[in-house]
Amino acid sequence: MKNFVFNNPTKLIFGKDTIITRLRAELPTDKTILVTFGGGSVRKNGVYDQVIKTLEGLSFVEFWGIEPNPKVETIRKAVALGREHHAGFVLAVGGGSVIDASKLIAGAIPSERDAWDIVLSGKITEESLPLGTVLTIPATGSEMNSGGVISSIETKQKFGFSGAYPRFSVLDPTVTFSLPAYQVSCGIADTFVHVMEQYLTTTGQSRLMDRWAEGILLSLKELAPIIKEDPQNYDARADLMLCATMALNDFIRIGVTQDWSTHAIGHEITALTGLTHGHTLAIVLPGTMRVLGYTLKREKTLQYAERIWHITEGTEDERITAAIEATEQFFRSLDLPTRLNEMNIGREVSDEIVRRFAERDVKLGEASTVDAECTRKILDSCY
Amino acid sequence: MKNFVFNNPTKLIFGKDTIITRLRAELPTDKTILVTFGGGSVRKNGVYDQVIKTLEGLSFVEFWGIEPNPKVETIRKAVALGREHHAGFVLAVGGGSVIDASKLIAGAIPSERDAWDIVLSGKITEESLPLGTVLTIPATGSEMNSGGVISSIETKQKFGFSGAYPRFSVLDPTVTFSLPAYQVSCGIADTFVHVMEQYLTTTGQSRLMDRWAEGILLSLKELAPIIKEDPQNYDARADLMLCATMALNDFIRIGVTQDWSTHAIGHEITALTGLTHGHTLAIVLPGTMRVLGYTLKREKTLQYAERIWHITEGTEDERITAAIEATEQFFRSLDLPTRLNEMNIGREVSDEIVRRFAERDVKLGEASTVDAECTRKILDSCY
Repeated sequence: MKNFVFNNPTKLIFGKDTIITRLRAELPTDKTILVTFGGGSVRKNGVYDQVIKTLEGLSFVEFWGIEPNPKVETIRKAVALGREHHAGFVLAVGGGSVIDASKLIAGAIPSERDAWDIVLSGKITEESLPLGTVLTIPATGSEMNSGGVISSIETKQKFGFSGAYPRFSVLDPTVTFSLPAYQVSCGIADTFVHVMEQYLTTTGQSRLMDRWAEGILLSLKELAPIIKEDPQNYDARADLMLCATMALNDFIRIGVTQDWSTHAIGHEITALTGLTHGHTLAIVLPGTMRVLGYTLKREKTLQYAERIWHITEGTEDERITAAIEATEQFFRSLDLPTRLNEMNIGREVSDEIVRRFAERDVKLGEASTVDAECTRKILDSCY
Repeated sequence: MKNFVFNNPTKLIFGKDTIITRLRAELPTDKTILVTFGGGSVRKNGVYDQVIKTLEGLSFVEFWGIEPNPKVETIRKAVALGREHHAGFVLAVGGGSVIDASKLIAGAIPSERDAWDIVLSGKITEESLPLGTVLTIPATGSEMNSGGVISSIETKQKFGFSGAYPRFSVLDPTVTFSLPAYQVSCGIADTFVHVMEQYLTTTGQSRLMDRWAEGILLSLKELAPIIKEDPQNYDARADLMLCATMALNDFIRIGVTQDWSTHAIGHEITALTGLTHGHTLAIVLPGTMRVLGYTLKREKTLQYAERIWHITEGTEDERITAAIEATEQFFRSLDLPTRLNEMNIGREVSDEIVRRFAERDVKLGEASTVDAECTRKILDSCY
């Protein structure tokens, strides 16, 4: 096991009616709150009304329009609004995009750096404004981690950065009842692949971390068909929401190596085509496994095959193939096409990703072997 | 799933050489540090030398002699020493007993209440002094939770209380290499039963929490024989240390009911006989399962049988019996006798525990059914 430091201070407030009953006590009474929103779905599912009722009597200003794959151009406007109103607290109401953007907003308001410079530097080093969140989509884990991913329209780029953990996050599973099926599926795929990036590396690092990663994967496998069949199943929705948070809040990466090459490739696909993040991962992960599952990730893929898909028959290579097929089939069971051509993404996109990786001399993965050439093989296998 | 609030702010600093390389940066330079120790084993395993080297140039005072099952009479002396030196920070160096005691010391120094009054009230409500820990025994999880258990010599009682989470805890698995085998076994039993108290209730509350609890149990089952065979196996020691922390740091109790009756009975056995905490649990848990495993805990015991011990053959009752026997056998494989008579604990001890529970009108367990009468049955089955 590798040495590590774990420190996740986010207060998670979880359950039915927690927005109405618990949010107020977490909000500052002596500061102006910049409340950030996405495109307006919270007006339909009742979340906006609950939040506004909670804010009664407090000083706040609303910023609307943070888009999926949030753009730095939008974030700059939120930063300007926050400064204009001397905001001292940021409350993000939405999914991972709104929360990711709000982390950057909270870091950029008190900073002298431009928001995109912060992203390019990889880190908010300034003291951020305190941030709270009300989560509406289980997927990114942003509600309980310190990371975010931001895009630039101007440069067609998408990069991650690290900032501060939210002070608190309020998660009411009932607000996810009305999510469109595609968004639920992309959230499940995102959660699944978050786990895989922290799990599918080498064996023998930590039995416990392996079991916990597998625990999320097994839960997702069981929950997905239940939620598809019965979208209003509270316990299944609650468990899915918990899985999404726990998949990327540092809990399953303790003392182990990580990969994240599937994410890096997926981010490029989104930056170039706009395809939803979780969906890009459902396409790329099987590709990564096809290229690395028989070699670098061989032992772990065999463990994954046995423990997640109960594949124990056949030669090692046959079991690996079966595990990759089961993974792809799982994503397809979520009604997510798993091939680039099915999404009308042509070779020019792959070519551009490979060109960018070569230019940046990218070396991803737990063994730094996922370079431009390896990425070419991964993407080629996704058609 | 039940509504919940999760908020564990402890910074975990984990790995080889972390005392020497990482502790210093966490300590205050402007306050006197009260450093608390147990009976002296840290002088033999090198931990004391490392801590003292780290403290060079800082203001500190040492308190020695916190015993296993820490006594409030000892704690009062530490509180007096801390007040005399105007301590502004407590650094606990030791196992769960030293850390539990130090939580109470950190709470009592600034308080006007007597330490035992705090314990009897169940909660430190005062602002505690900040507390850091250097853990030497993986067992209680106290290094990353807000609880503690304190005994009184005078009244022969042992009760839990809740206080503040440690600000940080430093865990170097190499310091556990030299632990006596009995202490390691009791730590494994303690960890195992911590998990069971949060797991062996009702099914269907959270798939994820079930998997995570089972993940710790499966890891313990695998790690115990490795460590017995090869006490210097770093990776196994590290994983065990991680398991012990994760078994009682709120991570596996999210949104689910809990039991804790085995602990309550075990605490009484320790209070009356001095038997080590983890060992009492190894005796009582199989008893609790014999009495409740076929009825109240039936479904969960069947799940436990299948997922932990791979017991799938036979009638339900036969599978439950086999799971209880496997559990008892696991503790015996740690060289822990699992019957009261093997430890020369007579019926007068059971009688006194039942008398106390009747007097206090105790109703323990997830369904509040473990009263004096049920406790009698549990203890009777442990001979």
